[in-house]
Amino acid sequence: MEFEEKTLERQTIFEGQIMTVAKDKVQLPNGQTSYRELVFHHGAVAVLALTPDNKIILVKQYRKAIEDLSYEIPAGKLELGEAGHEKEAAARELEEETGYAGELDLLYEFYSSVGFSNEHIKLYLAKDLQKVPDPRPQDEDEFLELLELTYEECMDLVKSGKIRDAKTIIALQYYALTEKNH
Amino acid sequence: MEFEEKTLERQTIFEGQIMTVAKDKVQLPNGQTSYRELVFHHGAVAVLALTPDNKIILVKQYRKAIEDLSYEIPAGKLELGEAGHEKEAAARELEEETGYAGELDLLYEFYSSVGFSNEHIKLYLAKDLQKVPDPRPQDEDEFLELLELTYEECMDLVKSGKIRDAKTIIALQYYALTEKNH
Repeated sequence: MEFEEKTLERQTIFEGQIMTVAKDKVQLPNGQTSYRELVFHHGAVAVLALTPDNKIILVKQYRKAIEDLSYEIPAGKLELGEAGHEKEAAARELEEETGYAGELDLLYEFYSSVGFSNEHIKLYLAKDLQKVPDPRPQDEDEFLELLELTYEECMDLVKSGKIRDAKTIIALQYYALTEKNH
Repeated sequence: MEFEEKTLERQTIFEGQIMTVAKDKVQLPNGQTSYRELVFHHGAVAVLALTPDNKIILVKQYRKAIEDLSYEIPAGKLELGEAGHEKEAAARELEEETGYAGELDLLYEFYSSVGFSNEHIKLYLAKDLQKVPDPRPQDEDEFLELLELTYEECMDLVKSGKIRDAKTIIALQYYALTEKNH
């Protein structure tokens, strides 16, 4: 493959619950060697979830990585064995985080931070949501607040810096491009 | 702060060139404890760069994290001491990767993967680019190919799965929302 970097040696540094960290010694296309620091992740799913009155569901939660609150679309990590079953995983996360259920359509798939990580996100659209009578409970270590906001209210949160999550910005732009005037 | 997770203990696992990996023991809002696996990163800049004839500049490069080629907008990590000087860093990356220079305007800033990392990206728009007569050379360990594509050609790369980089999708949707019909 063009520009390929061959792995000469891999040092596994950390095998955690949600990530594996490795340092690869690689051979560059010009024959020289270099090092790549890498984070391997099981992947995640996210949902642009629209209520029947066309509001966007956001989740407000604390994020330890930035030690701050973050406003995001509903999302969650893939659990072991869920590779290939991302749509079911997205429906589960949606129900757990919001209490809503609906049909899911894949919008995009992307790597969140391809410079150092293989975290892969599948982003779905869920329209015409319905409240689930007895929804699955949230994960035990998740604490969050639900918001149902208009597109304009979401963009105010972008401008004020409260929304600064890449997948949420992708979802809001998609909404502006396709759903806003429908 | 609402939902705050207090750090009870931090275990630093890896201090690399581009990232620090830590495992925090945290106290959850309900008093229980949990663990957070975290990747700290210096941040990055990226540029939606438009040629005078309104083409979008993409960079094709090999990404070790996914062991595949990736088509992305020009981008680069912040180097030590560049915090607070992101616009200059973006101009430098643009010149090194593309040989172009121009005025930069900040479009968005966001966290690429807030679930586990504090990597923060500032995305700029550069229009009316001009070729630099004697541009700064590329980094020694970067091998890449430049492309100048129409928006429609870029969207074909999204559909075929060759563009699957979050910051590049944000840049393309921004283009569709604001620049496409100008």
